[in-house]
Amino acid sequence: MKLNRSSTRPLLLVTVLMILAAMAVLVVSCQDNAEQAASGAQVAGATEDINAIAEARGLTPADIAAAVKTYTPSGKHDEYYQFASGGQSGQVYVIGLPSMRIIKQIAVFTPEPWQGFGYGELGTMSVLEQGGLTPDGSPLTWADTHHPALSEMDGDYDGDFLFINDKANARVAVIDLRDFDVKQIVKNPITLSDHGGTFVTPDTDYIVEGGQYAMPLGFAYSSIENYEEDYRGMITFWKFDREKGRIDTAQSFAIELPPYWQDLCDSGKLVSEGWVFCNSINTEMATGGVELGNPPFESGASQRDMDYLHVFNLEKAKEVYAAGNVEMINDFPVITLETAIAEGLLYFVPEPKSPHGVDVTPDGEFMVVAGKLDPHVTIFGFDKLMAAIEAGTSETDAFGVPVLDFDAVMEAQVELGLGPLHTQYDDKGYAYTSLFLDSAVARWTLGGAADELTEEPAWTLVQKTPVQYNIGHITAAEGDTVSPDGQWLVAMNKWAVDRFLPVGPLLPQNFQLLDISGTGTDMPVVYDMPLPDGEPHYAQIIKADKIEAWEVYPEIGWDPHTQAVNPDAPLAGEERIEREGNEVHVYMTAIRSHFTPERVEIQQGDHVVWHITNIERALDATHGFTIPNYNIHVSIEPGETVSFEFDALQSGVFSYYCTEFCSALHLEMMGYMMITPSE
Amino acid sequence: MKLNRSSTRPLLLVTVLMILAAMAVLVVSCQDNAEQAASGAQVAGATEDINAIAEARGLTPADIAAAVKTYTPSGKHDEYYQFASGGQSGQVYVIGLPSMRIIKQIAVFTPEPWQGFGYGELGTMSVLEQGGLTPDGSPLTWADTHHPALSEMDGDYDGDFLFINDKANARVAVIDLRDFDVKQIVKNPITLSDHGGTFVTPDTDYIVEGGQYAMPLGFAYSSIENYEEDYRGMITFWKFDREKGRIDTAQSFAIELPPYWQDLCDSGKLVSEGWVFCNSINTEMATGGVELGNPPFESGASQRDMDYLHVFNLEKAKEVYAAGNVEMINDFPVITLETAIAEGLLYFVPEPKSPHGVDVTPDGEFMVVAGKLDPHVTIFGFDKLMAAIEAGTSETDAFGVPVLDFDAVMEAQVELGLGPLHTQYDDKGYAYTSLFLDSAVARWTLGGAADELTEEPAWTLVQKTPVQYNIGHITAAEGDTVSPDGQWLVAMNKWAVDRFLPVGPLLPQNFQLLDISGTGTDMPVVYDMPLPDGEPHYAQIIKADKIEAWEVYPEIGWDPHTQAVNPDAPLAGEERIEREGNEVHVYMTAIRSHFTPERVEIQQGDHVVWHITNIERALDATHGFTIPNYNIHVSIEPGETVSFEFDALQSGVFSYYCTEFCSALHLEMMGYMMITPSE
Repeated sequence: MKLNRSSTRPLLLVTVLMILAAMAVLVVSCQDNAEQAASGAQVAGATEDINAIAEARGLTPADIAAAVKTYTPSGKHDEYYQFASGGQSGQVYVIGLPSMRIIKQIAVFTPEPWQGFGYGELGTMSVLEQGGLTPDGSPLTWADTHHPALSEMDGDYDGDFLFINDKANARVAVIDLRDFDVKQIVKNPITLSDHGGTFVTPDTDYIVEGGQYAMPLGFAYSSIENYEEDYRGMITFWKFDREKGRIDTAQSFAIELPPYWQDLCDSGKLVSEGWVFCNSINTEMATGGVELGNPPFESGASQRDMDYLHVFNLEKAKEVYAAGNVEMINDFPVITLETAIAEGLLYFVPEPKSPHGVDVTPDGEFMVVAGKLDPHVTIFGFDKLMAAIEAGTSETDAFGVPVLDFDAVMEAQVELGLGPLHTQYDDKGYAYTSLFLDSAVARWTLGGAADELTEEPAWTLVQKTPVQYNIGHITAAEGDTVSPDGQWLVAMNKWAVDRFLPVGPLLPQNFQLLDISGTGTDMPVVYDMPLPDGEPHYAQIIKADKIEAWEVYPEIGWDPHTQAVNPDAPLAGEERIEREGNEVHVYMTAIRSHFTPERVEIQQGDHVVWHITNIERALDATHGFTIPNYNIHVSIEPGETVSFEFDALQSGVFSYYCTEFCSALHLEMMGYMMITPSE
Repeated sequence: MKLNRSSTRPLLLVTVLMILAAMAVLVVSCQDNAEQAASGAQVAGATEDINAIAEARGLTPADIAAAVKTYTPSGKHDEYYQFASGGQSGQVYVIGLPSMRIIKQIAVFTPEPWQGFGYGELGTMSVLEQGGLTPDGSPLTWADTHHPALSEMDGDYDGDFLFINDKANARVAVIDLRDFDVKQIVKNPITLSDHGGTFVTPDTDYIVEGGQYAMPLGFAYSSIENYEEDYRGMITFWKFDREKGRIDTAQSFAIELPPYWQDLCDSGKLVSEGWVFCNSINTEMATGGVELGNPPFESGASQRDMDYLHVFNLEKAKEVYAAGNVEMINDFPVITLETAIAEGLLYFVPEPKSPHGVDVTPDGEFMVVAGKLDPHVTIFGFDKLMAAIEAGTSETDAFGVPVLDFDAVMEAQVELGLGPLHTQYDDKGYAYTSLFLDSAVARWTLGGAADELTEEPAWTLVQKTPVQYNIGHITAAEGDTVSPDGQWLVAMNKWAVDRFLPVGPLLPQNFQLLDISGTGTDMPVVYDMPLPDGEPHYAQIIKADKIEAWEVYPEIGWDPHTQAVNPDAPLAGEERIEREGNEVHVYMTAIRSHFTPERVEIQQGDHVVWHITNIERALDATHGFTIPNYNIHVSIEPGETVSFEFDALQSGVFSYYCTEFCSALHLEMMGYMMITPSE
């Protein structure tokens, strides 16, 4: 690691001062030690009285333990990355555990100037534009991000890619974890709402995007009076091309579903690999209309005691798709509901009641359904499911989908409390379920092979730890993989209320870190973390050593959007301005502390295409670039080449400058663009 | 505080479970206590062995002390707010001290969907549009925020307002700290670059916006060959109307300055109230052109040993402006350089060398200049300054500005080390200066009346604490007011390098918290905090009890942009849809867990104006609202009414829904907008 600081300043005096300062520190340390002995500090080798500090701050012994479990001093790295959706911010939070510090927000769906995402840089503008257009033809510039999914091999996170969905516009994004940069946004071609995504199959062959609010597939108009006839749900299987790092839309397909509101999904793993499970709500097919005297959706969609767990045979669906047994909607292949039933690739299982999460156990043997209006989690056995499918059923729903017998498929129910939402797992045979109405995290024991791991009997509630407040999802360290880590769990609370300093009527959310390294009732909250701009829905936590991020771009002239060298990248010594008619190309380099060129002359009305290469090779030697008034801002990381273009509509003098504080002479890293008036 | 949870579920079982769980906790606690006694834990009353946890995590005794000084447990509030600029993000970070948690990011210049800022809500769109348009007529949608300034009374923060500048486009924003919401953005009418802002006068009568890169005032074109003739610097004094909470542009004015690059400013206080001080760099008037074989700006602007401290007599400038002795540029009153000289409202003092910060001491007696290419800070005395002005001078710069004698005005110089940038103060007679090249914070003693407060002699370096890495500004608790608090100081480091888990080539910055409650050499770093999306330039830290934020909006139907009830706000029972020609008005309410109406029928081509009131009164009961594909997202806090409009260009069925997880039936809080095709 080189800081490449300027070394031309006189150093002698400073060195002397540093030595004096160091000596002074030694003297003080000795004094501190003497005082500490007198006051009876009780931490071995401490230079300050820990108890006195704690007492002055009102900390309990449990608080001190929590502080020491989570505090991560300067230069020491966190043990885990947590990737959390940013909710309505449209971004992804990258959080270090156990310190719960936000290390980065990755711009995914929403323009973000620090990263230069969507502020003129052609590569990022292209990602946004491919991500879908509004009715007036401009790019969609926000998302309601919900479920991040790390790429997996053999059901375990591999640290290569991250996927995330946009509930508000039915989209899926692909992030490359070498540079923590979004590479692709895909818009669902047949629906406008998703929620059961993203989830990956165990080798990341497919990224699952399940729908939420039913509508006519393909965007046609139909009155809500025709809800049962014309509105439909869907699930889409996006094929992922790992080598290209992109979704291959040409190898992807969807399945038409009844107009229930499909909710969360999960992929089968190990024994259940090849199957996919999704919950549903509003199997009542309520259509609202409180203003007409109808029951509102909230009660209309909560009438039935049972909704339907959707069980997909993905292997069979792939065969049906490969055989071309699909209908094209907006040029996208869709397996019709009729075909899905006829080919035996869709089954329903009754599930209580308006459930949220369906979460497959690490061994793949069980599907745990959290019925948010039912105090239990309901556990279905994969073996029983296969047997019931084998045995066949004459029951169907209103659309002809076979409905398996609840009792034949149900393995167990565990009563946990009010508002169960979502379940995660550890390495010690426990499951953890969030309880929204109780504002608590429940720990309970798994059955099956995992029964041996716990002292407590299978399928038993062990502990409920209160959280503050109104927990949505939970996420445990690698807690949805085939080999959870245990150790840490984060309660993703929706309301913070009184937890943090007041910041006006719009409050942050509250992530609470729970130490789940113990067993039994030992499961304390050890940290409260406010979420500063967006309400995360779900997160995943991955062991830090699985991520192999680039320190700088591999070669000078790198284009992050092709992950290859840009053959037109400006290089040192080749900076120039080329004019062809009224199109001007600027080829610029950046290095501490100047741009080349420093003067750019343009004529009003020119179309300007501007390329900049950061020719630095030092870690963290990023430069930014902006032109006043033109709404252009790019970030140029070491080795990167960026391009942007604009029409020089306004004449005048524009001071472009480096926007990342790069050196002592950073303010001097600037230049003048002069646009001569057109007449 | 009411959570207003649904209370219709069976509670008995849960209560029993909770009691059992609590008993189990008691049992475990006793076991833990026993174990702890055996293992010799040394924190009084601890239930876990602190030393064992620390040892397992590799924490030193100093780390434990730092952890206990900063850890802020669930439900306890931080002691201070830190308001930090978000740099290129265009936003403001709100950080709690000592925990260093980001509680909120306030959207200021950049659209941010979680807060509904710039995603269709008419009030926020209006703020953005008033903030300036790009050459193609669309709003500027980002900023390079630099210097936040809290409003003051008598030179002390009052907690009412926050101001912040945009260096990239020369703008100033006003944030109301009752709702942490931006109310106004003002674009400078004569220049495109600012840096010496925002700073306030001691009673917040004026907000100071100093320029940076010189250019022809008023946006005319002129070749850089005419730099000395046509390019100019400026300083703008924005009049603040405290009652309206807005800058009064009609009572504001600027002063024309030589084409040096004015840098940071500060207002005089107490004895020096009525005066304003700004540094400058590039008094060489270098014009760059490295591509032509000229010296680049970085060296061309670093030739002279002295630049010019600009000294403004603001009281006199106000009189000159009031007398109409101004020139109008773009309809904005500017006191010309000639008038400024003739009226004796501008003086220069030589200052070494390419300085960054000029920081007035708490007593107002001294101006401390940090010359970034000089190892000293240079202290000027206000008394000496007044005497030198009184005595007069025949020296002038090339533009005729009187230049006072350095030795007559200089009080002291203190050699600190390499790259001094910026200075703050505490309550114990110390000053603190950031050293960019040394990557250190220097503590040194003040002279004058403050000399009595310290044991060390006046104007003496006391301690240098290394920081990681490349520190820019520093900020201490109320450290630029007339009564600094001491206690905490934050080193705002520009490079993080190896401090945090890798996140690709673009790294966070690193805020380091220093405990400055001690004296002498006792000044340890106690926390490292990554900055996740933008490089803050400066920050201010205010005692928490000075901020009186609203918990909910004062009345139902509140418009945050007028801070009054909107007379057209939809109220409960008055929801409706009104059509006038092809304009449709939707009047909607939101309450857990439904919107009224739940069905909205529109015709393709209609212009739709949509109003929603959140009729909740409970803290944290925010609802969000979105319509798929139309790029609309609003946040509706308790009591708030928002309005947005769009053209219904695309027909089809659109599921609008609540985007803030508000209740167990949050997913059911939705409705359908049906747009019938136009033919």
